Amino acid sequence: MLSEFDLIAKYFTRPTPNATLGVGDDCALLTPTPGTQIAISSDMLVSGTHFFANAEPKLLGHKSLAVNLSDLAAMGAKPVAFTLALSLPKPDEPWLAAFADGLLSLADLYGCELIGGDTTRGPLNICITVFGEIPAGKALRRDAAKVGDDIWVSGALGEARLGLAGMRNELALDAATLSAAVMRLHQPMPRVALGIALRSVANAAIDVSDGLVGDLGHILARSGVGATLNVDALPVGPMLSEQPQEVRRRFALSGGDDYELCFTAPPSMRAAVLNAGNETGKAVTRVGTIEATHGLRLTDAGGVPLELHATSFDHFVAA
Amino acid sequence: MLSEFDLIAKYFTRPTPNATLGVGDDCALLTPTPGTQIAISSDMLVSGTHFFANAEPKLLGHKSLAVNLSDLAAMGAKPVAFTLALSLPKPDEPWLAAFADGLLSLADLYGCELIGGDTTRGPLNICITVFGEIPAGKALRRDAAKVGDDIWVSGALGEARLGLAGMRNELALDAATLSAAVMRLHQPMPRVALGIALRSVANAAIDVSDGLVGDLGHILARSGVGATLNVDALPVGPMLSEQPQEVRRRFALSGGDDYELCFTAPPSMRAAVLNAGNETGKAVTRVGTIEATHGLRLTDAGGVPLELHATSFDHFVAA
Repeated sequence: MLSEFDLIAKYFTRPTPNATLGVGDDCALLTPTPGTQIAISSDMLVSGTHFFANAEPKLLGHKSLAVNLSDLAAMGAKPVAFTLALSLPKPDEPWLAAFADGLLSLADLYGCELIGGDTTRGPLNICITVFGEIPAGKALRRDAAKVGDDIWVSGALGEARLGLAGMRNELALDAATLSAAVMRLHQPMPRVALGIALRSVANAAIDVSDGLVGDLGHILARSGVGATLNVDALPVGPMLSEQPQEVRRRFALSGGDDYELCFTAPPSMRAAVLNAGNETGKAVTRVGTIEATHGLRLTDAGGVPLELHATSFDHFVAA
Repeated sequence: MLSEFDLIAKYFTRPTPNATLGVGDDCALLTPTPGTQIAISSDMLVSGTHFFANAEPKLLGHKSLAVNLSDLAAMGAKPVAFTLALSLPKPDEPWLAAFADGLLSLADLYGCELIGGDTTRGPLNICITVFGEIPAGKALRRDAAKVGDDIWVSGALGEARLGLAGMRNELALDAATLSAAVMRLHQPMPRVALGIALRSVANAAIDVSDGLVGDLGHILARSGVGATLNVDALPVGPMLSEQPQEVRRRFALSGGDDYELCFTAPPSMRAAVLNAGNETGKAVTRVGTIEATHGLRLTDAGGVPLELHATSFDHFVAA
């Protein structure tokens, strides 16, 4: 049986050209680039809560890092490094090899180095902490939305939620749609390049992990403002085209796991926002306006108010 | 029932005078002091593996952070901030209040700010990542021991292991000894001040979390050297005074959870090492020598070789 130290050495010890010191000491060491701030985010993924116990380990490795990189993207930070703490029922080598493959393939794509962590025995639990760099003062914070800002969303919404609905048999999907939507759920791509391109363009940003209504709500609360969203303007994912309007709206407003960016920018920045989207190959769609009146209001394209039934996903409330 | 966001706000959102941005955004932001490196360590504590499921939550909060601060101490880094990812079966408020009390009391003692993290539902699991600062190039690394260095240990060894033996009924202890030894197990104090005082004095350092033999072994392996330890010189904790020699030696050599520092320094630094101990109120004891011949040799005070039965604690091998 592989010991903890063997496991670390075999799967998780890699060259770290950027870090001053990687896996294998009491601490890792990063030497910050002068004039930058370090952005830090930590997410824990638990079997049965965030993923099914029989989840494909390569996809799970990918997603575990992707959700953390998405937090860096939402600050406009450039990924630098991460730590991995992993609790496993037993040291299952094929599982570990596939998990490490998914994890480290995504890490390599962003030059984000595995610099440390911990492996231990216990129920399957994955805790990743990521580190990014950002020029001092340039972070896209949640508390920086201004009255009059446009509200934008990247990419398409609701497809990950469609995948979950298919897996749970809430909706009957054809095989091709099911397979594509499940991949949106399992293999999100963090919008890192877009976040960096928005550094001097957007005011506030968040990633859409718990559903647009809930996540935009965090920007509103932290910024002390309100908003109106044009529900008909939402970039509903094309995989939802066969679904009734109620499902399309609900999944786009409150489906979680999209990992797109929701951000605000002044109207004077519209061309710059579109340019940031073009340069990074990501669609960006204007979906609403930040207002002084607190609360979130929904309308259709004609400005007619809609009822807000959507609520945010919450790990301690949802099943 | 408290939602995830309520929990974070109630127990874990605090002022962060040192961090640029604390809990509540996609990422926390640290602004590094110019000329410093960031030391990072991540540890995961799992119910049933690292602590008993009915562990007193205040002590558990203390220990969860203490083991991470101990890693900073072993690098000579000054604690700055930490993230907490916490998985809980249910949002149990009295448990959380006590856990937060133990955790944050220790954090306050070291000016180490809680800047972010994650709470989620699942089997009890605590993952903390700590951040420290150290002047560039001054870190006490495991790979820096030199042939001829003295080997030193801070404080006393084996008492945490005695506490575990008492709890497991491996040994019959009187009530006062049991109680004191169990507190050594549950409430270790990281040797932060000593680590900082050793920055320009010691060559290599590690914290004794898995037992002296195993942890010193990491220094030897990473530095490409060997060592001889004088077993009779080991600072065996006074709580072990009633135990037979075999137990005293075994617990001092391979009992885990002491969270003392083991470090190496050239003989020319003996006065400086003793001074660092004096200034920080920590005993430091010279216990051996780094040698060119690989492997670890044990002798008694007369230089007579002893058999090495002790092995390091390993989470995937130990029960």
